[in-house]
Amino acid sequence: MDFTHFNTQKRAKMVDVSHKDYTLRIAKAYGEVVLSKEAYLAVKEGRVKKGDVLAVAQVGGIMGAKQTPYLIPMCHPLTIEGVDISFEMDDENCTIKIFSEVKITHKTGVEMEALTAVSIAALTIYDMCKAIDRSIQIKNIHLLYKEGGKSGTFDRVALKDRQ
Amino acid sequence: MDFTHFNTQKRAKMVDVSHKDYTLRIAKAYGEVVLSKEAYLAVKEGRVKKGDVLAVAQVGGIMGAKQTPYLIPMCHPLTIEGVDISFEMDDENCTIKIFSEVKITHKTGVEMEALTAVSIAALTIYDMCKAIDRSIQIKNIHLLYKEGGKSGTFDRVALKDRQ
Amino acid sequence: MDFTHFNTQKRAKMVDVSHKDYTLRIAKAYGEVVLSKEAYLAVKEGRVKKGDVLAVAQVGGIMGAKQTPYLIPMCHPLTIEGVDISFEMDDENCTIKIFSEVKITHKTGVEMEALTAVSIAALTIYDMCKAIDRSIQIKNIHLLYKEGGKSGTFDRVALKDRQ
Amino acid sequence: MDFTHFNTQKRAKMVDVSHKDYTLRIAKAYGEVVLSKEAYLAVKEGRVKKGDVLAVAQVGGIMGAKQTPYLIPMCHPLTIEGVDISFEMDDENCTIKIFSEVKITHKTGVEMEALTAVSIAALTIYDMCKAIDRSIQIKNIHLLYKEGGKSGTFDRVALKDRQ
Amino acid sequence: MDFTHFNTQKRAKMVDVSHKDYTLRIAKAYGEVVLSKEAYLAVKEGRVKKGDVLAVAQVGGIMGAKQTPYLIPMCHPLTIEGVDISFEMDDENCTIKIFSEVKITHKTGVEMEALTAVSIAALTIYDMCKAIDRSIQIKNIHLLYKEGGKSGTFDRVALKDRQ
Amino acid sequence: MDFTHFNTQKRAKMVDVSHKDYTLRIAKAYGEVVLSKEAYLAVKEGRVKKGDVLAVAQVGGIMGAKQTPYLIPMCHPLTIEGVDISFEMDDENCTIKIFSEVKITHKTGVEMEALTAVSIAALTIYDMCKAIDRSIQIKNIHLLYKEGGKSGTFDRVALKDRQ
Repeated sequence: MDFTHFNTQKRAKMVDVSHKDYTLRIAKAYGEVVLSKEAYLAVKEGRVKKGDVLAVAQVGGIMGAKQTPYLIPMCHPLTIEGVDISFEMDDENCTIKIFSEVKITHKTGVEMEALTAVSIAALTIYDMCKAIDRSIQIKNIHLLYKEGGKSGTFDRVALKDRQ
Repeated sequence: MDFTHFNTQKRAKMVDVSHKDYTLRIAKAYGEVVLSKEAYLAVKEGRVKKGDVLAVAQVGGIMGAKQTPYLIPMCHPLTIEGVDISFEMDDENCTIKIFSEVKITHKTGVEMEALTAVSIAALTIYDMCKAIDRSIQIKNIHLLYKEGGKSGTFDRVALKDRQ
Repeated sequence: MDFTHFNTQKRAKMVDVSHKDYTLRIAKAYGEVVLSKEAYLAVKEGRVKKGDVLAVAQVGGIMGAKQTPYLIPMCHPLTIEGVDISFEMDDENCTIKIFSEVKITHKTGVEMEALTAVSIAALTIYDMCKAIDRSIQIKNIHLLYKEGGKSGTFDRVALKDRQ
Repeated sequence: MDFTHFNTQKRAKMVDVSHKDYTLRIAKAYGEVVLSKEAYLAVKEGRVKKGDVLAVAQVGGIMGAKQTPYLIPMCHPLTIEGVDISFEMDDENCTIKIFSEVKITHKTGVEMEALTAVSIAALTIYDMCKAIDRSIQIKNIHLLYKEGGKSGTFDRVALKDRQ
Repeated sequence: MDFTHFNTQKRAKMVDVSHKDYTLRIAKAYGEVVLSKEAYLAVKEGRVKKGDVLAVAQVGGIMGAKQTPYLIPMCHPLTIEGVDISFEMDDENCTIKIFSEVKITHKTGVEMEALTAVSIAALTIYDMCKAIDRSIQIKNIHLLYKEGGKSGTFDRVALKDRQ
Repeated sequence: MDFTHFNTQKRAKMVDVSHKDYTLRIAKAYGEVVLSKEAYLAVKEGRVKKGDVLAVAQVGGIMGAKQTPYLIPMCHPLTIEGVDISFEMDDENCTIKIFSEVKITHKTGVEMEALTAVSIAALTIYDMCKAIDRSIQIKNIHLLYKEGGKSGTFDRVALKDRQ
């Protein structure tokens, strides 16, 4: 199988999607931030007592999703029609799990928008916590779900053994 | 230890660094992109035969580093003075390893710039390969090295057992 | 009545408009800049004699309208289809009145674009005049008119007693 | 007194500050958002019960401050060194009062950054509340305080009778 | 014939295209970078031996095309659906010829996107070579081809005598 | 002579300037827009009668200069300290001549900022006139003058025979 993003000069191009149809596209992505116990508890308890790290990460991630075409060189500019981000606190592993969902009715999908939302939200958590913990790790960023377009629906559950 | 990024109303602020000194700051970050065998080989052989995915990721990552303060909500705008990104191909694990290094002489560090460079380079590789492989994973993003500023030099080797 | 911009975790989201219809949307907004007599006359006479402050504010306001989704965190990115700004000089009150109008055929309205156009035009006038007058005031920014979409036409004249 | 922002062709320029000294600059700005009683109470009680409008406005305002030179045509790009925003709830007038403070050590001041922070925070509140209240008004945006640079300290208390 | 970009106050506006139809639009543009022999050969041989200047120019030009509405004040924001850039090496004149092509299905054309792609690609080549050659010249930037919209197809061959 | 912009992997980098000194840097650039007689006269007479194309180009060019590091992939982000643009009308050749000047006290020069200012001003003139003239040409963009930094002063007069 060949790359779609290179022209006959073997240089990158923004793929021509002008002939494609408008269809509803949904993409969901996932990622994790692993913190020290101290930093993890500071985030968890912060919402009430100190300040809400995840509220900032939520806004960072949503604004990041809008910047996707201006960050990822070959991405198409798109007018995304909905973005949501949610968090799950995994106490056992001191890990914040990040879930994003992006929707659009357009000629191309929004996987990269969903993945960028997760990445920028994760980096924002990192930034807010780095004074407490210098060994934060961002990991396991991948696509969870994709619907719409010629390539059909993608559901990660069937694939998770691979990694 | 408390967050530095919240004000007395428990809302986020951009920390005041106006009283700090200009010193040379260096930050190095790391991350990985795990591909299917097919996608991995396409990237590896692409430089010569098809088109150079990593050349695009290199530019994406460097331009991404410059966007850091406009992506990560509480980051200070900075005039970074050098950015480099390099790649290592890990054939055994079909993994592309990404290394970034950012330098500045300023009042605050450039960890977030180095981490954003890695993240956007990784997302660019993802974007270029997603037509071949829908199960790409971005993982193990963390800081490798940090020099300059009051908090002293940080070297991840001493810490790597933790995660 | 509830906010539409929060998810079940009580965090902000970009509202899902993917199911809505494309309709023509128009929004008009208004705002005022109050200047000292000296600064007001400098602007008024400047177009001919010194330099045209309002020409710069016009461009600033139109370019600002285009930045709306990248400034207002939960706004949808939109491909606005027309922006105009006009000014009225109120000699009695040394006040520059700013009117904006934005049009689009899309799933969501352009109030925020019209209001941002006025705000950035006002801030540009402020910037150009601040060396002459340090007590400039921007005031009375509000929506004048809104057409298109489920919520029907809004006309401020009926409401102006409230404020 | 003449405008500083026009060249000999009577066209706008970015004023040359290359010969000026680096000094600490502080600017504080202020603005108000007037809401209906329903919308005002929804914001006030939202932090606990529904979702925190002001947390989003805080992030929007701080990120807006960083965009100032890319929004206000003749503003100098600056590496601002601290931004804070705070809110005061005025129950009697159903008004949210916004205060911003920006710091930098540079050749030119940060008034426009402080005013832009307030303006974008106000527009964000507007955006989050516009589904509840279509007659929101943004008003009384002005500079409160300015320190550093040749023109000396400015303190609005002495001037407030004028407006 | 009159300008379309001015309002009744003789100030610039973003032209209202809301009433126009969606049609396929294509624009092709062209430009040249003239280098010293030394710089020209460094670029030509660089791809293999030193580093690929044109790979960076390719990415710069494509990302520049996406920035067009945020650079050219009266341009409409558009979701362009394909961008490609190619190069031709003219050994005799030590000149790199740049060709761009942009596509969209929208209410207005993409000439400015195609011209901006060429301009930013040319400036990127300039930047990468300026340490070797300080007399680089960018020249002959113009539209080659335009299709779609009311004004019909434009083909530069018929016009090239004029300039 | 070798490129400075490539690393040992032969991929582009942002050159490390952290060890360099702050010195005053000045760069002046030049470019031309060739119009049809009709379009040329419309611009020339427009300032008074119809609308001022060059006022928009002036703002576009200055704002474009500020975007340089976010457009040209390997450029350093800089806090430029002054930008001016001026125009000369060449009636005989129906040509608008554009001159830019950019200043900064920093570790690296501002040639690219001066050239980008000219390029975006030229593209803005193109955009405003394209409804009248479809064969506009942008040409002869080059550096006029450069001062500051290790490489010494550059003055194009001595070199102009080459091109």
